[in-house]
Amino acid sequence: MARRGARKAGLQTDGPRKLLDGQLAWRNPRYFDKATEPLSADQIEAIHEASLDVLEQIGIRFLNETALDYLQKAGCDIDRSDMNVKIDRHWVMEMIAHAPSSFTVTPRNPDRQIIIGDGYFHFGQVSSPPNILDSETGRRMGTRADFCNFLHLSQAFNCIHAIAGYPVEPMDIHASVRHLYATLDMLVYSDKVIHGYSLGKERIEDVMEMTRIAAGLSHAEFDARPHMFTNINSSSPLKHDYPMLDGAMRLAKRNQPVVITPFTMSGAMAPVTIVGAVVQQNAEALAAIALLQFINKGTPVVYGAFTSNVDMKSGAPAFGTPEYIRAMQISGQMARFYDVPLRTSNANAANVPDGQSVWESAFSLQGALSGHSNLIYHAAGWLEGGLSASPEKFVMDCEMLQQVIYTQQPLEFSPDALAVEAIKEVGPDGHFFGCNHTQNRYKTAYYSPFLSDWSNYESWQEAGEVWTHERAFTAYKRILEEHQPPAIDPAIKEELEAFVARRVEEGGAPTDF
Amino acid sequence: MARRGARKAGLQTDGPRKLLDGQLAWRNPRYFDKATEPLSADQIEAIHEASLDVLEQIGIRFLNETALDYLQKAGCDIDRSDMNVKIDRHWVMEMIAHAPSSFTVTPRNPDRQIIIGDGYFHFGQVSSPPNILDSETGRRMGTRADFCNFLHLSQAFNCIHAIAGYPVEPMDIHASVRHLYATLDMLVYSDKVIHGYSLGKERIEDVMEMTRIAAGLSHAEFDARPHMFTNINSSSPLKHDYPMLDGAMRLAKRNQPVVITPFTMSGAMAPVTIVGAVVQQNAEALAAIALLQFINKGTPVVYGAFTSNVDMKSGAPAFGTPEYIRAMQISGQMARFYDVPLRTSNANAANVPDGQSVWESAFSLQGALSGHSNLIYHAAGWLEGGLSASPEKFVMDCEMLQQVIYTQQPLEFSPDALAVEAIKEVGPDGHFFGCNHTQNRYKTAYYSPFLSDWSNYESWQEAGEVWTHERAFTAYKRILEEHQPPAIDPAIKEELEAFVARRVEEGGAPTDF
Repeated sequence: MARRGARKAGLQTDGPRKLLDGQLAWRNPRYFDKATEPLSADQIEAIHEASLDVLEQIGIRFLNETALDYLQKAGCDIDRSDMNVKIDRHWVMEMIAHAPSSFTVTPRNPDRQIIIGDGYFHFGQVSSPPNILDSETGRRMGTRADFCNFLHLSQAFNCIHAIAGYPVEPMDIHASVRHLYATLDMLVYSDKVIHGYSLGKERIEDVMEMTRIAAGLSHAEFDARPHMFTNINSSSPLKHDYPMLDGAMRLAKRNQPVVITPFTMSGAMAPVTIVGAVVQQNAEALAAIALLQFINKGTPVVYGAFTSNVDMKSGAPAFGTPEYIRAMQISGQMARFYDVPLRTSNANAANVPDGQSVWESAFSLQGALSGHSNLIYHAAGWLEGGLSASPEKFVMDCEMLQQVIYTQQPLEFSPDALAVEAIKEVGPDGHFFGCNHTQNRYKTAYYSPFLSDWSNYESWQEAGEVWTHERAFTAYKRILEEHQPPAIDPAIKEELEAFVARRVEEGGAPTDF
Repeated sequence: MARRGARKAGLQTDGPRKLLDGQLAWRNPRYFDKATEPLSADQIEAIHEASLDVLEQIGIRFLNETALDYLQKAGCDIDRSDMNVKIDRHWVMEMIAHAPSSFTVTPRNPDRQIIIGDGYFHFGQVSSPPNILDSETGRRMGTRADFCNFLHLSQAFNCIHAIAGYPVEPMDIHASVRHLYATLDMLVYSDKVIHGYSLGKERIEDVMEMTRIAAGLSHAEFDARPHMFTNINSSSPLKHDYPMLDGAMRLAKRNQPVVITPFTMSGAMAPVTIVGAVVQQNAEALAAIALLQFINKGTPVVYGAFTSNVDMKSGAPAFGTPEYIRAMQISGQMARFYDVPLRTSNANAANVPDGQSVWESAFSLQGALSGHSNLIYHAAGWLEGGLSASPEKFVMDCEMLQQVIYTQQPLEFSPDALAVEAIKEVGPDGHFFGCNHTQNRYKTAYYSPFLSDWSNYESWQEAGEVWTHERAFTAYKRILEEHQPPAIDPAIKEELEAFVARRVEEGGAPTDF
């Protein structure tokens, strides 16, 4: 049945193979191409200096007393009445210099370790949408069952390197204990690196503890190197909120990586010029990085870039635009200027997995990759500016992600690859299908898609005229059917479940912040 | 009615504006970013030398006695029995050196002149499909009415710079006179540069003559500089056909540009390795360029790259693949090595304007642009590996073309763009919508799409849940409705019509080759 359905949907059905049997192997992909750098070294320096002017002359509000205490100890100019902190440029640069240029993150399965920085790039699936949208059930609030299905997809695809947040919010779990069940599912159904949300002390501490348990580590072993990460967003313009700072500081103390992503939508929360928005993004990011380095010198951090423009007619956010591409490339230049890794996103503003969703994603990916991002959030499944997770889009995005990973492999170049002998053998009347040069290589010569339909129109018509998003739906169902969750030590699973039971019993986390 | 329909279809409807009133202005776009160069200088040299080995040791078949006569005069080693020509490497390089690195092409409206080479890039719409596919009438053979509709689209969009062939074959016109009516329509309904097909002496001579009449030029004026172009495909492996060579030589004698595009599908008509396929592409291209330079030193030529891979399971051609991207980038390196302009394509193998069609186009465009193509064929409207022209895809592609043109503009960079004063003015509690910095710039700050729908889900739902390809269909109809064909001198139009009437009377062109 499944295979007949798959044939009808234009998917590969040769033999007893699973749909993803031919997917790219798990790897830490690395850039082969150079980064695109729209700005000169002088211009990067000018953005840098302008950001330091913002920090010195205007300052950033740190809405967290503990953070203010640290910054006071560091000698910053603090106004406790509005929590504004003016920061000396030299101190910022002294702190930034402690941040590592790259680091590893090791989840419960050490084979799934990822290197953040050093020319490597990794993809995390869509995170945090409240809704799921699919062609079967329409648009509705996410549930734990949906959440788990997206985890299975994320685990099944080797082009997804990290569970970078909740792929959809499991809204049927009460907010006080949601993080416990969600983290349990993430750690059981995936063996990849996970992201913990900085939403208050209890939540982030629980996630760290569960990650430690899942990996079978002592507290000292957990603290010795990165095993998970968090992301904090500034509340632009010029503010870092309490819970985000709280989570970031807790992770920093334990050497766990913090991604700092200012929410600088140009024209709304940041200047209408792209370079102006990056000045503000840079100021907000540097301020938090400096704080974390002051707390723990050498703590791993990632420079996050989310700068895009809004539609000036409606104020709606836009992604994958020319402005977005340039913002990501310039952000890459800034991150390399400070010698820290870069995080970006694969975002779009479309409401369904249609043509627009794909061109906006393709252009977002182009910005992310040509800017040499090291960690790309929302890489698969994002729709509607992040308000919906789409399984169809997830599968379509993975087809694109595989291609961009494949493209960055070094090309084969050898005398035999130049093929003069094969050209001679085939001659002007022959065909290359049958020659030895082809026979020896054809199985692995080219990227092999799992979702693209390259059949001619007549065959496509006979197979039911299936459009990409429809094939993607069939593929999604088939992947779920064929997927085997990763192995986990039953004793560890039990320990995790016991931890969750105890913390649920205790009431989980407060929900009143 | 039209505006209500447009609103329903999620298109902009503010005021009495035409849909394309806000489109990018006509321009000769130029690369701001550097080309992506996957191969080292040594590797480019190795491809070059391997291609010259092919020319010297294996040779190319020139299936045209006139071409053979020229090559004999040039001292090449010719076997008249199989028309194979072995070509000395030094002579090839001596000839290639005469080819200009850039040139202008000036159509009947001199304001539509395009510069081919010198870092400029231009788009021609889809050419040569026998079929049209749209959501209203399905897939069927093209007619002259369809042909004219596509001409109107091509003329309406400023991101289409040349009528690079028949956007769809007008199959309802007899082949003997099709070129006459088609060229008449192209010259009347467009004032942009046109392409003439090299399909026998009569056809290409008629197109040159009609182009000359349309521009109101004497024969000497026409011959003095480029006013149109042709494209010839080699019949890979290693053959140049009679009519293609005939047309190319006729244009070369009159200083009209010839694009030489080997049909080197890797794994089928060329080696299974990408660098091997480029070796063959290079050999086939250099052979024809050398011939044309021998005939008329300095004649404008373009290095055409169409190398892509086939699906090794079915033999079906694939486009926009990782292999295609690399082939285009390497072809760019080869073209720059010889200091001639590069032609590529925006191709895909999808059967409908769905997600796959968009990601394959986006990746094709990425290959074309990162390879620094100077002329991009099939830029809008191609589907099915070239077997169908789609008006919906045409409109969707133009949204993408506008964005890639916009992205290549230099970024604004000034102290005011850095916006430190605006950040100070807005402060941590404000919003940038209202500040002066935004007010002074918001109208032109960002790329403004004509087809993307950035409304939120609820608004999108209320407007009828219109997917991109459906919006594209509405846009296509609306553009046709709003479009005004370009002005043409009635006397010139009459002269063109009289020419066509006479040539039809004479029987047009033979159809038996």
